[in-house]
Amino acid sequence: MPELRRDPIIGRWVIIATERGKRPVDFSSPEPTKERGFCPFCAGNEDKTPAEVLAYRPAETAPNSEGWRIRVVPNKFPALMVEGDLGRVGEGMYDMMSGIGAHEVIIETPDHEASWSTMSQANLEEVLWAFKERIEDLKQDPRFKYILTFKNHGDAAGASLEHPHTQMIALPIIPKRVAEEMEGSRAHFANKERCIFCDIIHQEQMSKSRIITENKNFIAFTPFASRFPFETWVLPKMHISHYEDSEKVGFDYLASLLRDTMRRLDTVLSDPPYNLIIHTSPVTAFNLEYYHWHIEIIPKLTKVAGFEWGTGFYINPTPPEEAAEYLREAND
Amino acid sequence: MPELRRDPIIGRWVIIATERGKRPVDFSSPEPTKERGFCPFCAGNEDKTPAEVLAYRPAETAPNSEGWRIRVVPNKFPALMVEGDLGRVGEGMYDMMSGIGAHEVIIETPDHEASWSTMSQANLEEVLWAFKERIEDLKQDPRFKYILTFKNHGDAAGASLEHPHTQMIALPIIPKRVAEEMEGSRAHFANKERCIFCDIIHQEQMSKSRIITENKNFIAFTPFASRFPFETWVLPKMHISHYEDSEKVGFDYLASLLRDTMRRLDTVLSDPPYNLIIHTSPVTAFNLEYYHWHIEIIPKLTKVAGFEWGTGFYINPTPPEEAAEYLREAND
Repeated sequence: MPELRRDPIIGRWVIIATERGKRPVDFSSPEPTKERGFCPFCAGNEDKTPAEVLAYRPAETAPNSEGWRIRVVPNKFPALMVEGDLGRVGEGMYDMMSGIGAHEVIIETPDHEASWSTMSQANLEEVLWAFKERIEDLKQDPRFKYILTFKNHGDAAGASLEHPHTQMIALPIIPKRVAEEMEGSRAHFANKERCIFCDIIHQEQMSKSRIITENKNFIAFTPFASRFPFETWVLPKMHISHYEDSEKVGFDYLASLLRDTMRRLDTVLSDPPYNLIIHTSPVTAFNLEYYHWHIEIIPKLTKVAGFEWGTGFYINPTPPEEAAEYLREAND
Repeated sequence: MPELRRDPIIGRWVIIATERGKRPVDFSSPEPTKERGFCPFCAGNEDKTPAEVLAYRPAETAPNSEGWRIRVVPNKFPALMVEGDLGRVGEGMYDMMSGIGAHEVIIETPDHEASWSTMSQANLEEVLWAFKERIEDLKQDPRFKYILTFKNHGDAAGASLEHPHTQMIALPIIPKRVAEEMEGSRAHFANKERCIFCDIIHQEQMSKSRIITENKNFIAFTPFASRFPFETWVLPKMHISHYEDSEKVGFDYLASLLRDTMRRLDTVLSDPPYNLIIHTSPVTAFNLEYYHWHIEIIPKLTKVAGFEWGTGFYINPTPPEEAAEYLREAND
């Protein structure tokens, strides 16, 4: 059973894999686990993954057989285990709990070569619906406090499989970065009775210099204090605290904006590896006035981010205004 | 002039390079700046760096000529500028200040091939003294609140030059991670009237499972909630809040422990790239009861740390107890 351990100084929780821990040799041999040429997420290989928990497929096809458009399966090598109780224990001065959680994979399309820039609007829209469906199912489990949805695209961004997929981890704790955002936006609301993200959207629309693209319901821009070159945020213009409550602004609008944004990043940065993270409210909360869900996209560019994750101190060599200009002008 | 910009939501300051910003093409071409075969830090090339601000060299040698053992020079491509005033301004809802700061490089030895595991005890001891001397000089400048000392070793850890060196950045703000540590340890002290780092040392000495090596005055262990495989912390056993006030525990003891620790990491992980960061108190404080300076070493191992720095949420595939066991048993 993996463990969740709490840093006693700053309170950050970390998942520690306690079984089958990676040994030194696992880090030195290049690509030890990737089986080249074989992809368990491709159509025809449905029996190579755990059984699907959700699939978009014609009614006449059987579960775990071909014919699907989207499949969601438990991760074969989960970071957390879904079965068990949340044992909370101390070890001397330290705090830990058993590593309970869900770890799922959304296989976004049978097409091994697709990406968010090249897949159809209809395909990406269904992917976004699948996220919502899985979040709504996982939030029924009272052990889970937060559902983290993230996508690693490309080798350098940590993707261990090429086939287009997104991961979802349901957690019994709230990740530190999310907790900080909740706290910061709560303080802003307490001061001003306004959502800080709504204020940011307003500010960006006034100054225009960091906007990449927008449509009726969504906006993409490079944030004022971007940590990374070409860091990009996508927000619904209307105030919504939870991703899964976004029908009213339309997953069609979101899919359209994301495809547009991704095509611009691909054009300007030549299909960069990236991490994409949905920042949404904890599932234990409900219609928060002060928090506004959004997506953060971080292209993983060569030689950027050295000691930064060790210090919380970032040096960004590309001003967000310049990055936005490149992305605005990219025609696809 | 670079800018320091504050994230309005979580309060993290970021350095944004506003001049000569990196363009998209700078990220796609591999190794655009590295001149192979030529090293500006090697003996004989003293005129290829800015003039030295400190050097350990025989009295009969002239500044910026050969014969030195250690040289400290301003960074030729500084992230911050040392000349100017700390203009603090708002831009709409955002906060920023001019990017004032010092950015220096400690060239640790004339030997291009050396590392902290292979250089002599006397050499590393002088390096540690040079850190202290530069910190004491930089803290005279009232514009600076924090002095960050860090080392990127190896390409994958972001080192742009191979020659053994450490960087020092004097900042007009306190980095977020440091502020969090100060806050967490202040809260612990308020509760218990004890330094949390002293408590951690005591705990580790009781349980023993995470200790790598120790000597009379210093200890190295893998922290309980390690974010990364083989993450290693080094602390003085005696309570000292500021790195530069450590004569009483001996830079000889520190050099000896660091060489031992680095040799173990090199043996077990085959000379891994790593980031090493000195966590010390802000220069505006003085003999703090609640904070305890220490060094964090983060080996940068393949395929680890994907989306982690975007979320503050870490999955560590190697339990620190196993990592410590490998490192304890490594004989050099």
